[in-house]
Amino acid sequence: MSDENMAIPATGRQIRSLITAEGELELSLVDVDVPAPTGDQVLVRIEAAPINPSDLGLLFGGADMTAASASGTPDQPVVTAPIAPPVLAAMAARVGESMAVGNEGGGIVVATGSSPEAQALLGRTVGVLGGSMYSEYRCVHVSQVLALPDGVTSEQGAACFVNPLTALGMIGTMRGEGHTALVHTAAASNLGQMLNRLCLADSIDLVNIVRRDEQAELLREQGATHVCNSSSDGFLDDLTEALNETGATIAFDAIGGGRLAGQILTAMERSANARATEYSRYGSTTHKQVYIYGGLDRGPTELSRNFGMAWGVGGWLLTPYLMSAGHDEVARMRDRVAAEITTTFASGYTARVDLAGALALDAIGEYGKQATGTKYLITPHG
Amino acid sequence: MSDENMAIPATGRQIRSLITAEGELELSLVDVDVPAPTGDQVLVRIEAAPINPSDLGLLFGGADMTAASASGTPDQPVVTAPIAPPVLAAMAARVGESMAVGNEGGGIVVATGSSPEAQALLGRTVGVLGGSMYSEYRCVHVSQVLALPDGVTSEQGAACFVNPLTALGMIGTMRGEGHTALVHTAAASNLGQMLNRLCLADSIDLVNIVRRDEQAELLREQGATHVCNSSSDGFLDDLTEALNETGATIAFDAIGGGRLAGQILTAMERSANARATEYSRYGSTTHKQVYIYGGLDRGPTELSRNFGMAWGVGGWLLTPYLMSAGHDEVARMRDRVAAEITTTFASGYTARVDLAGALALDAIGEYGKQATGTKYLITPHG
Repeated sequence: MSDENMAIPATGRQIRSLITAEGELELSLVDVDVPAPTGDQVLVRIEAAPINPSDLGLLFGGADMTAASASGTPDQPVVTAPIAPPVLAAMAARVGESMAVGNEGGGIVVATGSSPEAQALLGRTVGVLGGSMYSEYRCVHVSQVLALPDGVTSEQGAACFVNPLTALGMIGTMRGEGHTALVHTAAASNLGQMLNRLCLADSIDLVNIVRRDEQAELLREQGATHVCNSSSDGFLDDLTEALNETGATIAFDAIGGGRLAGQILTAMERSANARATEYSRYGSTTHKQVYIYGGLDRGPTELSRNFGMAWGVGGWLLTPYLMSAGHDEVARMRDRVAAEITTTFASGYTARVDLAGALALDAIGEYGKQATGTKYLITPHG
Repeated sequence: MSDENMAIPATGRQIRSLITAEGELELSLVDVDVPAPTGDQVLVRIEAAPINPSDLGLLFGGADMTAASASGTPDQPVVTAPIAPPVLAAMAARVGESMAVGNEGGGIVVATGSSPEAQALLGRTVGVLGGSMYSEYRCVHVSQVLALPDGVTSEQGAACFVNPLTALGMIGTMRGEGHTALVHTAAASNLGQMLNRLCLADSIDLVNIVRRDEQAELLREQGATHVCNSSSDGFLDDLTEALNETGATIAFDAIGGGRLAGQILTAMERSANARATEYSRYGSTTHKQVYIYGGLDRGPTELSRNFGMAWGVGGWLLTPYLMSAGHDEVARMRDRVAAEITTTFASGYTARVDLAGALALDAIGEYGKQATGTKYLITPHG
């Protein structure tokens, strides 16, 4: 660690997403001033930033990326794509506003403000949360960074907020609402594998739902006990059996559309009724909850409602959870993530691209699919 | 009021609902012993009992009543109807058990146990809650009856629990979860008209959703300000406007199936976004809640999820609400219902049938439709 600031350019590049009044999405790179941090601020040289599913809504703005076209130069690419009118209506509040993208990243603190808290971070490798991370440099408040243990790289720390805090937030929600085990869909995702490791470490029963046999195999190799394949004929019976064994009455669903959320409630009701000793006219009195936190299937959610009256389905987001959990709990969560960032909370990537590379049509076609097993990392400095 | 018990027969008749192992529903009348009340019990001569939507699940057991057939005699009718195998599976816990039906009723206390609380009720007209009300006599604990003011008839008091406490429970849920106005569907029902009167009395903004113009007219004649017709082309715009004016962010839905619950959330999100000052990538941060408390449409609930992430849909039942509200609050609710049973909490009926008449196929065809404007009252003693 040095007490002199590293050489910092006057400007840095960042990815921008703009929706025009004509209903076109425009992705581009812009040069922005690199600010000098003051007070409690630190300037981070962003070396790695993951492309998470939660980034794609802001990045793509609901545009039809299968109809995207490329222009500009290799170094200054521009991607345009059409937005359907009903989607455009929902995006009215951001039309004409060029928006920076990227929820989290990892990098080195290269300059700081005058506060002792900020100065203590100079030279440290940190994870950063707070938007605009698909940038070469980001100036943020000290509360937005997580100092990583010695030896942890920017790439290892690039995803230390969204997925780790989401996994911990699911467990916290489960406990806070009185459940003792949980169900997770799209369970072979980076987040799903992380949740599986976390539940194994903390001896929490987890029912993993995947869509392909190889995903089930992957999770079992990583120690998962309960894995159900929603594509198999016996899915509902398999799931009910797993619920009988675990007693899980809360689920976190990344799929959103289709019948899966309702099927989970149906299986939970079956499992609850199997334990009941007498007929209950309105179904079991066991509260069954599914939180939808993603939208891998953008279609409508279809609930058959054959699961009594004690049920709930709702949206779940990390930020409101953290706000409700309170400062001390969040501090504990962050400390644990930092300590276990290369083990429990490790992320893996299948491709690395620079800022321009992230706007290549073939890359967009890949990471835009949000397919399990595909995970992109942006390395702004190449 | 007299201190000698009225003449009481040794047996009385009651409606029974039985599901056979072969998958057939059988409705019939049986003679049961009339018990002598002891301790805190009172014996009520049931003079009136409403057929509420919440009674039909237990009564019909999911059978296909359009395929019902009648046998027996005019005085001892028997109705049978087939039950589809998947429905039968869900009813497994009640197969072979002859079940008495009827959530609530009104009548006269004709005998009591020895406790002062019970004896004080002798001769009083009371509302009764607790099942098996489609009976000539019911012996219940004093806590299950509500003594009605002088001059109130058994018919006027027959529906003093389910709808009045449900209307009050919706308001209590609204307040308890931090909302200040509410939406109600099937709003021209007996319950809906009652909720409208309650909200007018308590100056609570209510958005009424109906399915026909004449229902809208009926509610407007009763003082309703916000009435939207879900069958009209401009429904979503009309509803959004009503939400803009009221700020309602919670709804109680009696329909259940189809797109209505989701449309309400969509309109709530539109209304919330109209007040927003900047683009929020995950939709508004205003929590939007729909509780489904009925199933007039048995089909699946379809949620388009174009309403951000701060939303919930769930089942709502009166009994768990009362349990969570606590004894003192429920006592206050009951006192208010008794005081306003012929005004705010009045119910109206379109047909009166005796126990045998309630098992006539034409009557079943009518009240089984659960159509707004049709409400049956059973008068067990004719």
